[in-house]
Order: sequence, then C-alpha cells, then structure tokens
Amino acid sequence: MESPLGKIGITLGDPCGIGPEIAVRSLAELDEQSRQRIVVFGDRCAFEGACELVGSRPMVALSEDSQSGLGSEDLRWGHPNDATARAQVVYLDSAVRAIRAGELHALATAPISKAEAARAGFSFPGHTEFLLDRLSAPRVAMMFAGPKLKVVLATVHEAIADLPQVLTCERVASAIELAAHSLQSDFGISDPIIGVLGLNPHAGEGGRFGDEESRVINPAMQLAASRLGPRVKLVGPLVPDAAFRQPFDCFVAMYHDQGLIPVKLVDFDDSVNMTLGLPIVRTSPDHGVAYDIAGQGRARATSMRAAIALAFQLTDMRAALASQKST
Amino acid sequence: MESPLGKIGITLGDPCGIGPEIAVRSLAELDEQSRQRIVVFGDRCAFEGACELVGSRPMVALSEDSQSGLGSEDLRWGHPNDATARAQVVYLDSAVRAIRAGELHALATAPISKAEAARAGFSFPGHTEFLLDRLSAPRVAMMFAGPKLKVVLATVHEAIADLPQVLTCERVASAIELAAHSLQSDFGISDPIIGVLGLNPHAGEGGRFGDEESRVINPAMQLAASRLGPRVKLVGPLVPDAAFRQPFDCFVAMYHDQGLIPVKLVDFDDSVNMTLGLPIVRTSPDHGVAYDIAGQGRARATSMRAAIALAFQLTDMRAALASQKST
Repeated sequence: MESPLGKIGITLGDPCGIGPEIAVRSLAELDEQSRQRIVVFGDRCAFEGACELVGSRPMVALSEDSQSGLGSEDLRWGHPNDATARAQVVYLDSAVRAIRAGELHALATAPISKAEAARAGFSFPGHTEFLLDRLSAPRVAMMFAGPKLKVVLATVHEAIADLPQVLTCERVASAIELAAHSLQSDFGISDPIIGVLGLNPHAGEGGRFGDEESRVINPAMQLAASRLGPRVKLVGPLVPDAAFRQPFDCFVAMYHDQGLIPVKLVDFDDSVNMTLGLPIVRTSPDHGVAYDIAGQGRARATSMRAAIALAFQLTDMRAALASQKST
Repeated sequence: MESPLGKIGITLGDPCGIGPEIAVRSLAELDEQSRQRIVVFGDRCAFEGACELVGSRPMVALSEDSQSGLGSEDLRWGHPNDATARAQVVYLDSAVRAIRAGELHALATAPISKAEAARAGFSFPGHTEFLLDRLSAPRVAMMFAGPKLKVVLATVHEAIADLPQVLTCERVASAIELAAHSLQSDFGISDPIIGVLGLNPHAGEGGRFGDEESRVINPAMQLAASRLGPRVKLVGPLVPDAAFRQPFDCFVAMYHDQGLIPVKLVDFDDSVNMTLGLPIVRTSPDHGVAYDIAGQGRARATSMRAAIALAFQLTDMRAALASQKST
C-alpha cells in the first residue's frame, strides 16, 4: 500500500564525485520511517561503493529505471570517464520521469559535474535550468536557505558585464514573488518582510553610481507588491554592504556573489540550495563534486544532510497546508 | 620643544553630523601622552558642543588655522546649512596645509556629508579622491582593515555597469602593489600572502560567465608579481563566494560591495578605512554623518576610536622602520 506521506527522490549526481558518499552518509542517519519515503536514483554499484566507503548500508529503495549500466570497473573516484559522464544524466532523466508520473513530491540532488554532463549531451548550466525546462515551469529562482540567512537570486550564472542587460524589471519582480510565495507556503511565514538589494554601491547614491535602482528595482518592487497584496512587505532598494545584518525574512539579491558571499560567510556549510517555482520541492547542497577528495571517506555531508532534511520539512509543510485548504 | 613622536591630525567632518561627538568620545579615552600628539581641525564651537554632549573635555590642541568662523548659532545637530557645509571643507583644506608643511604624520577624518560639501565647492566623491589630488599622490587605494579581514578595493565608487570599462590591468596591479606595500611597511608582514578575487561568479568558470579573469586579473597579478619580487605571494583569481573564509593576509576585491559586504559582516563596526599610497597615514571610520542620530549622545564611536588607534599604530610603525633603515 502506498505511504500517505510524500516520497523524496535522491539523485546520486556524478558517481565518481563525492555525491554518492554524502548521500549514503546522510541516508544512514535517517530513521526507519523516513527511509521508507526515500527513492535513490543512481547505479547500484555507485551506491554500494559509497556504502563500503562510509561503512554503512542504509535500507532504501533504489530506482530500477535509473540504472545506467555503469559497472564497478567503470568507477574510479575522482576520475570521470564517458560512462560516469552519462550516468549522472541518466539519473536525472529518470527522476524527471518519476516526477511527471506523480511518484515524487521532492527531489534532493547530489552534485553533478557540469563539464562532464555536457560531454554526455546535458546542455544546461545546471540542475535548475534543466528542471525548469523538463518540468515546464514558467519561471524559477534559486533560494539559498541557511539557519541565519535566506537569499533569493534575481540572476544567477551571469557575467558582471551582462548584468545591466539581464536585470529586467520582470525578472526582479519574479524573484521577489517566488521568494514571497516560498516564505508563505514553504516556511509558514504568513506576513513576510523581504529586503530587496540595490545593484550598485550605496544603492547608486541617488543615481550617482548607476541608476538601476530607480529604473529597474523600484518599479519591480511596485509591480511585485501590486501582485502580492498587502500581506507581503518589501523594503529597498537596500544599500548592499549594510543590508545583511538587518533581520529580514529573506533577501532578494541582484546577482550571484551579492547573495552568496554573505550566505557562505554567515551560514558556512549549513545552507541549502532550493529551486523555487517548480511543481515539486527541490533542494541540493551548495557545493560541487570535489573530485580532489572523492573516495577518501572525508567528504562533509553537512549540506547534503540539510538538503534532505529540508526536502522532508517542505514536503510535509506543503501537505499540511494542502489538507488545511481541502477541509 | 617639538615632540619626537609623530603628530596625528583629526578633522571633525560635518559639524552637524556625528563627527564631533565620536571624535570627542574617542579623544577622551586617550592617555595624556597620546593626547599631546593630537591636533584637531574644526571649529571651537563644534568641538565644545560635542564635549558638552559627551560630558567630557579632552585636553587636545585645536588648530587655529582651521577655524571657519562657524558660530554656535549656525550649529543645529542634524540640520546642515551653508555655514556647516563650508566648515567641513575648511577643516580639510587646513589639514592639507599642515600635512604639506610637514606638521602631521597621520590624519584621521570624521565623516563629511558629500552632498553638503559639494554645495560648498568640494568637487570630489570623497576624502580619498580629495587627498589624492591635494597631496599629488600618483595612485591611491582604499583598504578596509578589521580584526579579522583586510580588504583593498581595486575600484570604489563605480556603477556595476561601468566595471568592465574601469577594471584595467594597471588598476588591479596597482591595488595589489599598494596592498603588499602596506602589509609590509604598515603591518610588519614581511612575506605577505594576498588573495586576489575574480570578478565574475565562480571566477568566470573558465570563461563561461565572463573573461576578465584571464584577460585582466591574471595579467595584473603577473605584472604586480614581477614588480613586487618573490617575498609577496599572490593567489587567485579566487572564486568570490568561497574566498573569504580562507586565511589570507589581505584580499584585493574587484569592486566595492565584493569587498565591503564581507568586511561589514565579519568585522561589524570594528573595521577602519585606510587610504594607501599617500605620503602620510590616513584612516577614517567606515560610516557616514548619520544626521538622524546626531546630537543625541548615542552615536557609537567604535570605528572612529579604531581609526585613531590605527593612525597611532601605523605612524609609530613607520617611524620604527625608518629609524631601522637609517641606522
């Protein structure tokens, strides 16, 4: 009989990176009831290899559909090859099929190597853009959620030189709205207060160092406010270097490092990357494949553990809110 | 008889901001010997008003040359007028005359209001650019020095949109060299290790999100390394969001908020702004005039106190190094 509680998918990511190790280490710490809600997307040999490394074999379901045919002879930690490049893409494709079939309520993804995945035909800058495309989401945004700071990015993998072109009013408004919806429906904050960062030093100081604050960000805040209604309070455009010690429920940052420099300084390894705007919950650790330490049994599972815990928490929060609405 | 120890000038800044208050509060805590080395540049009535506010009258020299003619009837905390706008510029002009006459070894500047000073004919974005011009320095850079982090900025008050144009190889190399010289001669670190930040997210990830790392920053590091010699070690271009937890003696940041977001998060109110490249030591607190709390007796003097302490420390360090060389 199907469990009434939502299922959580875990993709192992690049099988010769630290993904399998941190996934197994995190899963080994789950209680029996939580483990029954897990489905792992990854080759059996990658999973078993990681269990050996960690010294524990968590009892969880392994998706048959996700087997890429990788053999243990293909698998050397830290040394990618054609088979491992392809395997990480197979895991993701399989997880997407399960999501579309309604079998998963959340997905926590271990890191892929973008360069290796690209060799196997994966044409996206990362998981986020892949899921946006495959799940036909109209718009998504990345949130980094740590114990102290939550930050949503209005732009992600963009060169600094391209920011003035890509930072549009609609894009900023969209990031603000996705942040507000997530605070309300994922974190249960019914009246969130969101700090919206300026782009330029001193937030432009009245147009002296750039005018995106008055030309793009202020109009975006007004647009978002009109769509969100009075329960959401927006404050900004904030002076970036003075903003992060103020107690907002969430910040909307205009570019990658404006948001991630503070997150990584304040929340260290404890922050989790969430994709907002998808039909399911999606979380991931905020680091990469770390080939240099793969297979040595010393990868820290802090962020992966937090990603899985948050996937459970958000799935159950959404289920609780849905059952409230239906009664 | 002239004291053999270097003199420290203090400009009071905007007389109706918090400058006079934080200056007096800091000076009141100095010991007798240190107070004898201080010269205050500011109107008597502004100084006396702040003494009344703080409840203490530190015995220090007041520059006669710096009296702008401001009367107590002109002075209302938080309410600038033509006379106060002009006064802050008079203090700076007077301090520059004293520096040129060889009477000062260091200058710690309380905050001015740039908008007010501009009304009085001050045509510079800030103290740094003013001193660069008036003291005919070939090049300067701003360093923020706190207990945990030191950061030098390659660019300061520039719109994000202008960064690709203003971030030249020579400018980055110059910031690196000024950082290295300051670490060696001001902080006594003979073999400094300097972390040089990338400009783009993930430091461009091999050119995928911008190419300034290979086109500008790497060549600048090579240029600076060839001029600095083998005692200085340069590491970079670093991935910006991962860099600031690494233990470098100093970071060179490519733009204002890349450097100041971490400084203000890690060192809170304890960081001091230093101008590198001037013939004298110059420090200042890292905040503004704060009209909103001026005259209430509750302005925190933490950063001004640290700026004055650092001015003493660097002056004495330079004197010690100079006497080593001459013996």
